[in-house]
Amino acid sequence: MTDAPAPSRLAMVPFVSVARMMEMVNAIGPRRMMAELAEYIEEDFRRWERFDKTPRVASHSPEGVIELMPTSDGETYGFKYVNGHPSNLKRGFQTVTAFGVLARVDNGYPVLLSEMTVLTALRTAATSAVAARHLAPKGAKTLALIGAGAQCEFQALAFQEMLGIEKIRIYDIDPAATRKAAANLAESGLDITPCQSGEEAVAGAQIITTCTADKQYATILTDNMVGAGVHINAIGGDCPGKTELHRDILLRSEIFVEYPPQTRIEGEIQQLDPDHPVTELWRVITGQSEGRRGPDQITLFDSVGFATEDFSALRYVRDQLDRTGHYEMLDLLADPDDTRDLYGMVMRAKG
Amino acid sequence: MTDAPAPSRLAMVPFVSVARMMEMVNAIGPRRMMAELAEYIEEDFRRWERFDKTPRVASHSPEGVIELMPTSDGETYGFKYVNGHPSNLKRGFQTVTAFGVLARVDNGYPVLLSEMTVLTALRTAATSAVAARHLAPKGAKTLALIGAGAQCEFQALAFQEMLGIEKIRIYDIDPAATRKAAANLAESGLDITPCQSGEEAVAGAQIITTCTADKQYATILTDNMVGAGVHINAIGGDCPGKTELHRDILLRSEIFVEYPPQTRIEGEIQQLDPDHPVTELWRVITGQSEGRRGPDQITLFDSVGFATEDFSALRYVRDQLDRTGHYEMLDLLADPDDTRDLYGMVMRAKG
Repeated sequence: MTDAPAPSRLAMVPFVSVARMMEMVNAIGPRRMMAELAEYIEEDFRRWERFDKTPRVASHSPEGVIELMPTSDGETYGFKYVNGHPSNLKRGFQTVTAFGVLARVDNGYPVLLSEMTVLTALRTAATSAVAARHLAPKGAKTLALIGAGAQCEFQALAFQEMLGIEKIRIYDIDPAATRKAAANLAESGLDITPCQSGEEAVAGAQIITTCTADKQYATILTDNMVGAGVHINAIGGDCPGKTELHRDILLRSEIFVEYPPQTRIEGEIQQLDPDHPVTELWRVITGQSEGRRGPDQITLFDSVGFATEDFSALRYVRDQLDRTGHYEMLDLLADPDDTRDLYGMVMRAKG
Repeated sequence: MTDAPAPSRLAMVPFVSVARMMEMVNAIGPRRMMAELAEYIEEDFRRWERFDKTPRVASHSPEGVIELMPTSDGETYGFKYVNGHPSNLKRGFQTVTAFGVLARVDNGYPVLLSEMTVLTALRTAATSAVAARHLAPKGAKTLALIGAGAQCEFQALAFQEMLGIEKIRIYDIDPAATRKAAANLAESGLDITPCQSGEEAVAGAQIITTCTADKQYATILTDNMVGAGVHINAIGGDCPGKTELHRDILLRSEIFVEYPPQTRIEGEIQQLDPDHPVTELWRVITGQSEGRRGPDQITLFDSVGFATEDFSALRYVRDQLDRTGHYEMLDLLADPDDTRDLYGMVMRAKG
């Protein structure tokens, strides 16, 4: 590598690496950061109709999928690159990695490049908590977490911070994963109960979160495990062929989703008729539709993750840059003195 | 900004900034680099049928467009982010900026992030020269270049290197642009003739390249300007509502395109019936279709730029990294020791 001439200010794009993102999370604190993120996510759900929405653009292969998730609110454009490769775990790679970009719609210039593996974990938990604020039974104190993978601790802390959850009951088919999560949450102030089965985990829980990682039709929750009045937050079923709940639970529940055209393909409701009634979360948040109607109703947030949530998360991160300083500048854009003289710029760089 | 812990090798993605790309171009030499790029582009046209092709995913606004152009050959996935904002010029921004990513299909991990503003200029000229190798009249020595913007010099040098062009006749409605191009090419060994009109520029030229930038239906070439046997390389008409050639020229020409579903919307042929016959360039390159049939035929390459060309260009750049060293490493991907312990990784970064 040799020295290069200093690029102009217009050529530079703020970049939040994984290391900078971790600094940012630790500086703000994961609970506070998720609560602040939740405000951005809820704000964007409130102006849902302003967004240019499109199902993700997926490139499938036998090993997994690579997706681009673009959206725009008319002023700002954003997209996330994300892969999903369940077999990666066995090979020492992450199942999911992600990064994202925000850009100005008026001139097309990127204004942020950010890692999104950590950020997606934060926004997913924040989105779950936003939905639960509108759907979970009042005064819920106990959360069952089924699946103690990468998302588990974020869920626990977001629900502690935003819903006042005090007790967490964790179950994973791998006891080591449960121990990992319990150890990470040891100083959180939460009362943690590691459980030996899903049945044990859901006992007494007013909210059940399923966040397992198998890429297959699984039955993490059977019908008899779900009592009246429970709120279910199903976030592990997020691609075609991957579900977590028995179909009978869906038939007993009032179902809330992010963006129906995507959830019909990827969510729990791929098990149901394509015209099975669902309520869009943004309608509940804006008061156009009712959320929970009573203490005995089972509510289900069938969450698959949508582009606007990533947009909200990137928007939040961009707004923290000046406050936290946790970023670097990348020379990503060409900016010749004379915009028609791209060739001359290259030649002058020989210096 | 504070110090961050060193990320693992798996977390790192090679990054070619604008400065590094300019170093690479100058180290390899623009002519040699375009000739080498052309081999990658032609190789990917030869295996056209292996690619997962999709029209670009566009987000339109009154000011312009932001596009994602993904493709995959089954082993490698690539996409380009590119904007097109004609009004940017007046405001001191680039009309077009771009960057791109290559990733492994088998695990979804990005393996290259690169600027693509400079790289797109190189690949566009290299693609033009690939097409001309198959379509231009034998022994062509004179190239007319109409439009002396950012693409002009790259076209001149690619055609000099790959087709043996010796004389360049340049016209732009702005004489300053023509002077800029002539000055940049002064030491190229090309015989440069600045012209006062399009008519003057095309006089005696066997190849005509139109590369103007207006976002409107324009008539850069009228019917009487195009004589028998000429090859036209139309690259400025590249979005809906933007064309450069009079319709009568199209009706006299044998038309070659990259990917018909995209060219019908964006290219010169948006002026023709949707079933007007065109020949795909890859069929000519693989010998499945005839290219130029005789010395009097007018051939037209209606080029709009396709995702596979960007893929070829990114593939070429990736192959130069070890050879040239013109890159940096970016900490873009999260790589916890235990893939399920993302939260623990974030907490341990507090150090």
